Amino acid sequence: MTKPGDKAGDGTGGTSRRGFLGGAGLAGAGLIAGMVPARAASPDPMITEVQPWAQFLGPGVDDAPYGKPSPHEAHVIRRNVEWLTADTASSVNFTPIHELDGIITPNGICFERHHAGVADIAPQDYRLMINGLVDREMVFTLQDLLRFPRENRIYFLECAANTGMEWRGAQLNGAQFTHGMIHNCMYTGVPLRTLLEHAGVQPNGTWLLAEGADASAMSRSIPMEKALDDCMVAFRMNGEALRPEQGYPVRLVVPGWEGNMWVKWLRRIEVGDAPWHHREETSKYTDLLADGRARRFTWEMHAKSVITSPSPQAPIYHGRGPTVITGLAWSGVGTIDRVDVSLDGGRNWHHARIDGPSLDKSLHRFYYEFDWDGSPLLIQSRAMDSAGYVQPTKDALREFRGTASIYHMNGIQTWQVHSSGEVENVEVA
Amino acid sequence: MTKPGDKAGDGTGGTSRRGFLGGAGLAGAGLIAGMVPARAASPDPMITEVQPWAQFLGPGVDDAPYGKPSPHEAHVIRRNVEWLTADTASSVNFTPIHELDGIITPNGICFERHHAGVADIAPQDYRLMINGLVDREMVFTLQDLLRFPRENRIYFLECAANTGMEWRGAQLNGAQFTHGMIHNCMYTGVPLRTLLEHAGVQPNGTWLLAEGADASAMSRSIPMEKALDDCMVAFRMNGEALRPEQGYPVRLVVPGWEGNMWVKWLRRIEVGDAPWHHREETSKYTDLLADGRARRFTWEMHAKSVITSPSPQAPIYHGRGPTVITGLAWSGVGTIDRVDVSLDGGRNWHHARIDGPSLDKSLHRFYYEFDWDGSPLLIQSRAMDSAGYVQPTKDALREFRGTASIYHMNGIQTWQVHSSGEVENVEVA
Repeated sequence: MTKPGDKAGDGTGGTSRRGFLGGAGLAGAGLIAGMVPARAASPDPMITEVQPWAQFLGPGVDDAPYGKPSPHEAHVIRRNVEWLTADTASSVNFTPIHELDGIITPNGICFERHHAGVADIAPQDYRLMINGLVDREMVFTLQDLLRFPRENRIYFLECAANTGMEWRGAQLNGAQFTHGMIHNCMYTGVPLRTLLEHAGVQPNGTWLLAEGADASAMSRSIPMEKALDDCMVAFRMNGEALRPEQGYPVRLVVPGWEGNMWVKWLRRIEVGDAPWHHREETSKYTDLLADGRARRFTWEMHAKSVITSPSPQAPIYHGRGPTVITGLAWSGVGTIDRVDVSLDGGRNWHHARIDGPSLDKSLHRFYYEFDWDGSPLLIQSRAMDSAGYVQPTKDALREFRGTASIYHMNGIQTWQVHSSGEVENVEVA
Repeated sequence: MTKPGDKAGDGTGGTSRRGFLGGAGLAGAGLIAGMVPARAASPDPMITEVQPWAQFLGPGVDDAPYGKPSPHEAHVIRRNVEWLTADTASSVNFTPIHELDGIITPNGICFERHHAGVADIAPQDYRLMINGLVDREMVFTLQDLLRFPRENRIYFLECAANTGMEWRGAQLNGAQFTHGMIHNCMYTGVPLRTLLEHAGVQPNGTWLLAEGADASAMSRSIPMEKALDDCMVAFRMNGEALRPEQGYPVRLVVPGWEGNMWVKWLRRIEVGDAPWHHREETSKYTDLLADGRARRFTWEMHAKSVITSPSPQAPIYHGRGPTVITGLAWSGVGTIDRVDVSLDGGRNWHHARIDGPSLDKSLHRFYYEFDWDGSPLLIQSRAMDSAGYVQPTKDALREFRGTASIYHMNGIQTWQVHSSGEVENVEVA
């Protein structure tokens, strides 16, 4: 990869211009000040001669029955932060959001968060039990689930701890590490409502416990109102079977709510009349306040956004001139109505352009195009959701919630862009 | 994989029922005739004891920085038909649509069609030239393209020859082989319009030639009206870089039109005042009629649908009772307004349910749920698009176009479902 600030005419986006068809005839191209420095080359060996890659037949079909990315994209992978956890079995890695565009996250690079590694479940061995306050306690096989009416929805999944290090100031240098505990996929599954109606929830059944089949037996309490609203028992992501690390063969989808509740390798749903207060909703996944008390049941992921490029891992390579700022915005409450971008640390704001589907509880892609004069910038994005909630500053959050928590940090992120094009994670007052 | 018709209580969806919690107490579950045969087991060792897969920590994060499907899904791959072509360098394979759900096709299993293998292009070597009847002939690097405003759209890509063998009767046994030359992805790129405006199309520039950088130098003529409408110069599919076999780093997206025009490894766009009549739009990709004449420039993919499950590779495993029919519908003209399903070879039609985003020139997912009595079926689907066009029968197409073509077969597909649950490709009069 070329270093930022390399402006040589080396094919990485430098700004040199040569006349096309023998000289200055197209010097006019250089006059399009403020537009894209597309270069006119004469005579360009890439065009007039046979390109090296076109001299021989490359691999044919079936070279890879299940294909992989180009070797030139080997850097686009999930990464972890080694000092963050003691063991990879209970750890996290991060989606390379700084390299992606659009709103779909490919299955192979959706971040992972495991509490006891990945369970290996053969589909024919899979069972889902519904028990507790129901008329008919039941056990479903995977084939049973495939006989109920299905639905397809694109939803983001964000870990409650995404951006959690930022409570105590700018620490990790890269959107992948500060905001990469998120992905956005199309899920296919059966509405949880359908299964609960089939089992017959009793009148005092106001809560349920979702339990996973991994070695941690991950379990979370979910209010019945949410279960009957939009939860799904999902067996497909982005068209194909769930990936092992995402709960193969079946996971719970809890749209807009913190990722930990989307129980993977889902084996049991118990209906009860009160929350269970298990470990993952008491000692973990509660928000510790400055006075030692903790907020509990803060399930909803509030409106948030981040600029993914430029960002520390995605510097500006091309020097001054036309520049695209892009990023992601989302809300666990609904859609994103508006995203603003600031170039000066939040003093002035500009409307960003949302492009692509605007779907309920899904990532939204935004763009802001501007003509960079090469001076340092403090770039920020700010999301507003369909409920009118506006993404706050980090300091505004800290005022109410202190800095002891690692969860639910949705404050405005600041990247400092240097004249060289390099970018770093900073705090602004 | 279990054979169709296996109704044993072996976890593959058999219909046996046992009482839950010690006997006949929940025999009521067996009374839900016509509903899902979820089984109640007592005491189920899968639930009351530790499952084998939960006894040990599985792989942790970063076991696979770029993840792969479960080994249990190893059969969900692109496949070819060996006798179809002489060499894999100029050949085709097929998307396993019978195993997928929702509307997104994962990048790794998008079908391939190469005319001279896969070109290996390093991103820093990539160039796109625009020449011909323009004010400014130009050459863009990949970094140059990333400086223009981008858009994100989900589009299907269908090979003109998809289902082509069916002109001459039911031949290939499997939706993957009859209808699998299709995929549906979110593309991110620059509108072709933007680049053409940048180069300045001259008044007599009414056509363009799109040319690929592979060893076949694939080239197709495209009318300027389409180029300025919705074509894209795309560098991302489903969020990440294009896959090598899909044109890495840049391909042309020609929404709704035959896949051959979506030139991969796009290296040149020439603006002219007439079509070029190159090989791939004369001897190939024209529709030979019974009288020896050929239809040319039949770019648009007309409304079409297919039932993906049950289908020959996806038989009914569970025996009689609640059964889900699902499939795909699409139109190169717009959206799909309606899909009907027949169980009796087209005599009676039932409304199918479209679920998931209904997007312009994108796959739509439909479902039809019914209670199968175990008798043989002739299942069909029929799509109607937003222009009011109704998918015709194969015979209606043959009446006007003969059976000499291999392109643009969008007739209604029939699958025969046997009592055993096995399915085969048949023709109905």
